[in-house]
Amino acid sequence: MDFASFITSVLTSFIIFVVLVLVFTWLSRRPGNAPVYYPSLLLRGLDPWEGRRRGTRSPVGWIRDALSASEDDVIAAGGVDAAVYLIFLSSVLSILVFSGIVLLPVLLPVAGTDHALDLRRAAGFEPKNNSKDDSTPDFPQMERLALGNVQPSSTRLWAFLLSVYWVSFVTYFVLWKSYKHVSNLRATARSTPDVKPEEFAVLVRDVPRSSPDETIKDSVDSYFRALHPNTFYRSMVVTDHTKADKIYLEIEDHKKKIARAEVVYANSKTESNPEGTKPTHRTGFLGLIGKKVDTIEYCSEQIKELLPKLEAEQKTTLRDKQQRAAIVFFNSRSAAASASQTLHAQVFDKWTVMEAPEPREIIWSNLSRNIYERQIRQVVVYFIVFLTVVFYTVPITAVSAISTLENLRKVLPFLKVVVDRTAIKTVLQAYLPQIALIVFLALLPAFLMFLSKAEGIPSQSHVVRASAGKYFYFIVFNVFLIYTLGKTLFASLKTILNNANIGLIINMLANSLPGGATFFLTFVALKFFVGYGLELSRVVPLIIFHLKRKYLCKTEDDVRAAWYPSDLGYSTRVPNDMLITTVVLCYSVMAPLIIPFGVAYFALGWLIAKNQVLRVYVPSYESNGRMWPHMHTRIIAALLLYQATMIGVIGLKKFLYSPILVPLLPISIIFAYICHMRFYPAFANTPLEVAQHELKETPNMDAIYTAYIPPCLKPDKLEDLDVYEDAQSHSTSRAPSI
Amino acid sequence: MDFASFITSVLTSFIIFVVLVLVFTWLSRRPGNAPVYYPSLLLRGLDPWEGRRRGTRSPVGWIRDALSASEDDVIAAGGVDAAVYLIFLSSVLSILVFSGIVLLPVLLPVAGTDHALDLRRAAGFEPKNNSKDDSTPDFPQMERLALGNVQPSSTRLWAFLLSVYWVSFVTYFVLWKSYKHVSNLRATARSTPDVKPEEFAVLVRDVPRSSPDETIKDSVDSYFRALHPNTFYRSMVVTDHTKADKIYLEIEDHKKKIARAEVVYANSKTESNPEGTKPTHRTGFLGLIGKKVDTIEYCSEQIKELLPKLEAEQKTTLRDKQQRAAIVFFNSRSAAASASQTLHAQVFDKWTVMEAPEPREIIWSNLSRNIYERQIRQVVVYFIVFLTVVFYTVPITAVSAISTLENLRKVLPFLKVVVDRTAIKTVLQAYLPQIALIVFLALLPAFLMFLSKAEGIPSQSHVVRASAGKYFYFIVFNVFLIYTLGKTLFASLKTILNNANIGLIINMLANSLPGGATFFLTFVALKFFVGYGLELSRVVPLIIFHLKRKYLCKTEDDVRAAWYPSDLGYSTRVPNDMLITTVVLCYSVMAPLIIPFGVAYFALGWLIAKNQVLRVYVPSYESNGRMWPHMHTRIIAALLLYQATMIGVIGLKKFLYSPILVPLLPISIIFAYICHMRFYPAFANTPLEVAQHELKETPNMDAIYTAYIPPCLKPDKLEDLDVYEDAQSHSTSRAPSI
Repeated sequence: MDFASFITSVLTSFIIFVVLVLVFTWLSRRPGNAPVYYPSLLLRGLDPWEGRRRGTRSPVGWIRDALSASEDDVIAAGGVDAAVYLIFLSSVLSILVFSGIVLLPVLLPVAGTDHALDLRRAAGFEPKNNSKDDSTPDFPQMERLALGNVQPSSTRLWAFLLSVYWVSFVTYFVLWKSYKHVSNLRATARSTPDVKPEEFAVLVRDVPRSSPDETIKDSVDSYFRALHPNTFYRSMVVTDHTKADKIYLEIEDHKKKIARAEVVYANSKTESNPEGTKPTHRTGFLGLIGKKVDTIEYCSEQIKELLPKLEAEQKTTLRDKQQRAAIVFFNSRSAAASASQTLHAQVFDKWTVMEAPEPREIIWSNLSRNIYERQIRQVVVYFIVFLTVVFYTVPITAVSAISTLENLRKVLPFLKVVVDRTAIKTVLQAYLPQIALIVFLALLPAFLMFLSKAEGIPSQSHVVRASAGKYFYFIVFNVFLIYTLGKTLFASLKTILNNANIGLIINMLANSLPGGATFFLTFVALKFFVGYGLELSRVVPLIIFHLKRKYLCKTEDDVRAAWYPSDLGYSTRVPNDMLITTVVLCYSVMAPLIIPFGVAYFALGWLIAKNQVLRVYVPSYESNGRMWPHMHTRIIAALLLYQATMIGVIGLKKFLYSPILVPLLPISIIFAYICHMRFYPAFANTPLEVAQHELKETPNMDAIYTAYIPPCLKPDKLEDLDVYEDAQSHSTSRAPSI
Repeated sequence: MDFASFITSVLTSFIIFVVLVLVFTWLSRRPGNAPVYYPSLLLRGLDPWEGRRRGTRSPVGWIRDALSASEDDVIAAGGVDAAVYLIFLSSVLSILVFSGIVLLPVLLPVAGTDHALDLRRAAGFEPKNNSKDDSTPDFPQMERLALGNVQPSSTRLWAFLLSVYWVSFVTYFVLWKSYKHVSNLRATARSTPDVKPEEFAVLVRDVPRSSPDETIKDSVDSYFRALHPNTFYRSMVVTDHTKADKIYLEIEDHKKKIARAEVVYANSKTESNPEGTKPTHRTGFLGLIGKKVDTIEYCSEQIKELLPKLEAEQKTTLRDKQQRAAIVFFNSRSAAASASQTLHAQVFDKWTVMEAPEPREIIWSNLSRNIYERQIRQVVVYFIVFLTVVFYTVPITAVSAISTLENLRKVLPFLKVVVDRTAIKTVLQAYLPQIALIVFLALLPAFLMFLSKAEGIPSQSHVVRASAGKYFYFIVFNVFLIYTLGKTLFASLKTILNNANIGLIINMLANSLPGGATFFLTFVALKFFVGYGLELSRVVPLIIFHLKRKYLCKTEDDVRAAWYPSDLGYSTRVPNDMLITTVVLCYSVMAPLIIPFGVAYFALGWLIAKNQVLRVYVPSYESNGRMWPHMHTRIIAALLLYQATMIGVIGLKKFLYSPILVPLLPISIIFAYICHMRFYPAFANTPLEVAQHELKETPNMDAIYTAYIPPCLKPDKLEDLDVYEDAQSHSTSRAPSI
């Protein structure tokens, strides 16, 4: 890629971004779009215009709002998870800013005043004319400012070597502060005086088969009452309620249809037709075939028919479809915290206990899987992920190799006509590889979510973490490693085949990385300008919302469903940010010019994410920052990759002192270990200190219990709770509640 | 080593063994030796002759007694730890017996009827005359019965290949049964209705620095009272009592001297001297110089002087020498079990909790080390161990290389005169290498114990485990790997230097292992005949006891101290048995003749150990079989080594189907993982199920508390307990006991 196409790419991206920001500024001022741009505010009952009219009138008002919002505002709007995500962005930002402050003023002059590239060119290694050999990278002005322009064994390399140390220690410092901050945040969030149902509950899995004349419910009750005589409150056995759920959803669907039909009926009562037309539909496939019926009447009848069916099914489910898992409730938070961390059974594959997830994020179908099934599923899933990660490389390698147009032209000579036109060539060269990459990456997240769910993980937040982890492997391996390697591979496939050797691969990585800098600069630019522009302007949700409102929505509920926002989508967001972190860290010393791009990416990202958290997204669960250790570990992994690469790159410059960098690797590992030892346990378990905090009020244990009943099994009145419980057990004795 | 020297070695060993057994039979019948041969019985107040007179009269009486003793007898005599050690021996025995039943009848004929060795000899690879080249091993009759006699690519190799599978599955089966058995044993032992102090206590380390006007005792009290309001009983802060201990020991020493002097004085009152002579001694160095004083008077005065000093020191210790660790007592077993498994502080480097060790096995000086110090010490210790393991190889390699007399003669030609005499040659060849090896190994255990203690481990049993682990690494690496490799190294040092390559090393291992079989046969024979003979006859303790009783012992206590038995000494016993396990497993298919030797070793070992447990050794701590997971893991490690070796060895025979063995490696790892997952948690922590069992009586909490007071700080009367506690804290409020 030459300099012109790089500038074109960045400029085009920037123009798209500016246009999208303008679109956002204009659209977000129109009250009709409020549900698209301020759904979180609306849901929390706040007026998006009140008190900030001045702000939103000015095009930078949203920036001022985002900057002035405190962490508490963020937690109130998006929960601790959103706050932790912002801390992640700001941590990476700090690392890059601190690094840049030293690296840019020092390394750019050091590299810029050397002449390695000129010398190579003068020595005839580089042909000066434009018909270049395709294995030779070209050297625009920019590459003069990078490590590549420093001559081998030069003392200038000391500056680069020390920079690696500086970046590493900045990273340690920032990460330590952030981990401490997040840890406190989590402790504060967990010790609020609000009653949270999950803090009183423990998830029990692998309940052993009780004797045939005892229900699982009874055996859970007797087991926990014996072991926790003073603190056990109640248990709820997990049931297989798929059938009840189906009936319940059918009823809900009919109710919605009635509501819609009534609106349509009311609207049809015009002056010309005071009676109105009763809406009808066909009962067959998709409403296209079958008998025509009056919707309101038909649906009411259906509901009448289904209700007793549901009740019968509820009873059957509670009594006969008990699964080998239960949620056990305790009458105090510290009792639950303590029980969730204590080994219960002599044999570990029985009575496994863990902290209960929030009711809204439980994945019911996974609860009853036994411990061996979970292990086997995990192994199988990781094997599939391994295959995916490794064999996705085939198409991506092909794309990145072909993406140099010269290669393309050589392989497909008939393209010459198109490719040789300068304008088309520039645009194609700028976007082709990046777009191919982004399309590839868009296919994956859903698949990874599916795989993570199949592992048998009991909570949504954990599935998101697992999926983000897999995505990270994928992204780093395929985009980062394979792109850089792929280029070299294509150029020197023969050498590889003759010398398949690990040392060689490391050398190759070190050799090919510097050349990839401009590619990644463009990649970062494209991602952040276009990506953030789309994110901020919400063009796609806006269009969908307006289309739906115009053609599909009949009732208020329909409209609400049309604009109801999603959550932040950590499972793709975090790995993508992690990729940029990895790329920018790895190139930070080799081509310091990448740092401003990284700073821009994370600064803009932080600003826009904060805006979206405050105004748009609604969290679908709250894991109290459980994501942080995950992010922390991966930043350290990126740092390790960076340090290993730098050892190789500086070593390749025939610099005698490059082994001075080797101690960085163990230092990073020790740092990670200390952080893990010090902070991680409080993320994996609830410390008693935290669970012991006073509650605002005496907890309403019935409400806590009810929170965990799946909607399709919920009795109509709260008084029916005892009936609900009794349906599960034969004996009806109950422990006294506090 | 040729066949003659092998037979000589085994026969000599066997004769020594028979002599020692006869010595034992004769000596153990003499009542005067009872304290040497039956100390455990005496301590438990049993009469060693009663009811078993007939048995001990017959030379095989002890065998009948050992065979008829049940597991409960063993537990009563030596605790669960001893029972688990016997299970370990019998498990390995079962593995070898089951393997031998199939392998011996199948593999010996298959190997014996082939002709690979003859063919090689006929082809001229092996010179037939006696002046052999020293790199050529000789082929006694025995080696015809091993894998070496099977021709390459022969279909006979299928028998060997399937045998590897048979041995592996026998191992899995036996280990699974044993783990289950030990797990039940542990559960039973832990749920006995006896009150054990350690089950009510939790060890707390890393107590954070309290405010200056608060003692550590107060901060521990307030912290635990807040977190466990209903179950907290009391706390005892660990103090640095080295000074008090010194004074206490001085007083004890003086008391002993008085007792001894009084006996001497009483004995001196003969008829000729009815007054007697008052014993005197000198106060200076070793009683050799200084003033001569009347021992009884002098010591009584010293005690009078020291007592107030001790009291003052006790007070100072309790008040001013509090350390950052404490033992916290709970009023129920399940509360303690639960507390020891629950995370207490938000930050992990504060308030670390774990199960309290037994009072008698606490290592007080290690309790107060903080978590970072522990980590650093561990890393340093492991580094030292690594160095020891790797660089001990230098001398051992030298010994094993020189140990072929031909080499010795070549290097030191003046030895020719001695070495060429057949008798000397045979004896030297038989014993030289083994004795060198055993001397080397004897130097190590004390050093490893010291290192393990320096890691900061709080209990003796854990130190023993850690030390046994290190010893195992050492033994397997140095004795097993290096002996076999060393031989080859000496022969082909040049090849190695030119081709330093991992694949080569594996090949070399596979190549050199078959030749080592006879060495290890002799090694096993020497170890078990001589070692077990000495163990059973207790010649050394017998001599020491009689010498001491004759010349040193004055009082009954002195005599008791002279025969008081040690514990089993797991830290060296287990790794040594593990080495034999590894050796026998690895050679089981290659040279099946080793199996009978292994069976004899473990059968005799089991019998003698059982006898010694029942009659001799007294456990110094009880860890309830905590050693088992350690043994289990190492047996699996030996199995993995065996499987890897067999893949190499059968592969070297140019057998196409040898990759069929590869799946065994993952199967072993999965087996280990499943065992670990299923059984290990109950070894690492106390399951609530177990802690919940009913107690025989209401526990006397004061007695439990007192059990943990170090002897030098113990108040004279039990009523002083409160004074003891109050000395540590400023506030004197106490939680109500149950």
